[in-house]
Amino acid sequence: MTKTFTIPQSVLWKDTYISLLDQQKLPLETTYIELRTLEDVWDAIVTLKVRGAPAIGITAAYGLALAASQYEHEDVSSFLVHLQKDKEYLANSRPTAVNLAWALNRMVNSVQNVSSVNAAKTTLIHESIQIHAEDEEVCRQIGENGLSLFKDGDSILTICNAGSIATARYGTALAPFYLAKEQGKELKVYASETRPVFQGARLTTWELMQAGIDVTLITDSMAAHTIKTKGISAIIVGADRITANGDTANKIGTYNLAILAKAFNIPFYVAAPLSTFDPTLDSGHEIPIEERDSKEITHVAGIQIAPTGVSTFNPAFDVTPNELITAIITEKGIIAGNFTKEIQKIFN
Amino acid sequence: MTKTFTIPQSVLWKDTYISLLDQQKLPLETTYIELRTLEDVWDAIVTLKVRGAPAIGITAAYGLALAASQYEHEDVSSFLVHLQKDKEYLANSRPTAVNLAWALNRMVNSVQNVSSVNAAKTTLIHESIQIHAEDEEVCRQIGENGLSLFKDGDSILTICNAGSIATARYGTALAPFYLAKEQGKELKVYASETRPVFQGARLTTWELMQAGIDVTLITDSMAAHTIKTKGISAIIVGADRITANGDTANKIGTYNLAILAKAFNIPFYVAAPLSTFDPTLDSGHEIPIEERDSKEITHVAGIQIAPTGVSTFNPAFDVTPNELITAIITEKGIIAGNFTKEIQKIFN
Repeated sequence: MTKTFTIPQSVLWKDTYISLLDQQKLPLETTYIELRTLEDVWDAIVTLKVRGAPAIGITAAYGLALAASQYEHEDVSSFLVHLQKDKEYLANSRPTAVNLAWALNRMVNSVQNVSSVNAAKTTLIHESIQIHAEDEEVCRQIGENGLSLFKDGDSILTICNAGSIATARYGTALAPFYLAKEQGKELKVYASETRPVFQGARLTTWELMQAGIDVTLITDSMAAHTIKTKGISAIIVGADRITANGDTANKIGTYNLAILAKAFNIPFYVAAPLSTFDPTLDSGHEIPIEERDSKEITHVAGIQIAPTGVSTFNPAFDVTPNELITAIITEKGIIAGNFTKEIQKIFN
Repeated sequence: MTKTFTIPQSVLWKDTYISLLDQQKLPLETTYIELRTLEDVWDAIVTLKVRGAPAIGITAAYGLALAASQYEHEDVSSFLVHLQKDKEYLANSRPTAVNLAWALNRMVNSVQNVSSVNAAKTTLIHESIQIHAEDEEVCRQIGENGLSLFKDGDSILTICNAGSIATARYGTALAPFYLAKEQGKELKVYASETRPVFQGARLTTWELMQAGIDVTLITDSMAAHTIKTKGISAIIVGADRITANGDTANKIGTYNLAILAKAFNIPFYVAAPLSTFDPTLDSGHEIPIEERDSKEITHVAGIQIAPTGVSTFNPAFDVTPNELITAIITEKGIIAGNFTKEIQKIFN
């Protein structure tokens, strides 16, 4: 029996505009803005109103379809030149986002053999809707696979926001919770606030609350005490990049949790689509770790909390070695055991 | 060769007033306020301008001596009645602070056999100075004992503020760093910011920077990555309460770090005076854990960061089991091995 509840979505196609959840305003304001031009889309990506690699890719795809629908060219070749130019413009909005480049390339490729400008415009809209729908299906599959690892009443800890609003719908690490809700199962979620940028406090709590899912916010420092005293039965996290051996780069703080999971002898799950895997890297040692502005640590909401001039170390990600990972949950199944071998197998 | 540098002190006796560092204003403003009346002292304790159990005890002792110096009684017995009344007033400023009650009782006891009001006034001033001096000596001994565990060039991680400004001087967990500085040894400190109240970010960084000690601020979530990539050689923390078997209650987040220390095979040290031990409790299971207002998690500097109405879990402390503690550093020596036996031995 399916229950009625809301899984928040951050990107919605409205034919003449994109309706986009302004994630910068969360959790205090739930504002959907209307993106009507290529510049609106560029600005929304640059100013982080949309975040989460899949959600960025989907927004950019819709943005390109929207822009192209307004082109006044009559011949296909000048249409394609214009499209290429706009694609490059959007691709520069966040150059390191892999899904952004991937989605935009896919959009441009979809119209390489069209016979008319009208056909191209229609194809681009269909392609962007397809990209959106495929991501939702991938997330739903991850959710179903993940849910098979949990049982009714479990309390599960997560970090950052690998959630519905970071994807087309459902999210990755949060997908099992929505699927559980659909199936009438009760899972209790503990959200780690995720310093320095508070994605757990700001986003994960918000989106789970929208769906009426039982969520409790803790600081990252409370993880061990919470696991011990609240009977946490598993930890589930998303991933930014997974190497050929299963080593997983994810939001800073993930590695802490993986070590705690092992110490408390509870499973540690990574939930990620196959697109997150980077088989060109043998292991996590090869993943470069971005270091970000010290102000993320020394200031909160613009207010200075640490001494002026203090030294900081602000890595955005950490790498969890495969031996701390119980299983990787993908849309094609659950990977466990010999990660290198099993990852190869799933890609063949 | 002793180098010249500043170890910040939070409480200074100035004969006609107490000079108190307003810790609420740190780290943005370094303000010493003048406490001239009993009410000033009460207010400073209640509003958390002074924090750290030993620093609170010292401030209260000076406060009682200051108040009594202004009494106009001519007979000892009415002097003592007044003193008892003021003692009870101050003791109520923070009823759960063990050192506060201990220091105030010691003050009152010191004058039970005096022969004149003038002698009583002098005795109270001497007793408060003595309480201050003894705490400084205890901290210095802890620092010397702790420093014997570190070597020049070590990088050491700490959490919260078991520092100079929480005590008479030197602090407990931070004492070895000041002693190292005095001896010309270079230790590099990583300070974990200590959510939710940011004592690491606000206080530990500030006081070590005053002394010119190399300190780097990280968020609590960065501990594992920092230990791994920055070659952290040990973790040292303070304690709120240590039970007969060595289990240690300390600021929330300490337990996380103890588990990480074990995983990375580096020592985990607790630095605390013997007054922190509570031999009436057999183990950490018996320590009640205070849960605090959810606003500490949902708001930072008055600004809301989490959704309105979100559930939170906000334990102020956690308990690190003795098997994760390499050694407890006290003023009487370093306790290691069979904690129950060694703790008994040091108290006998």
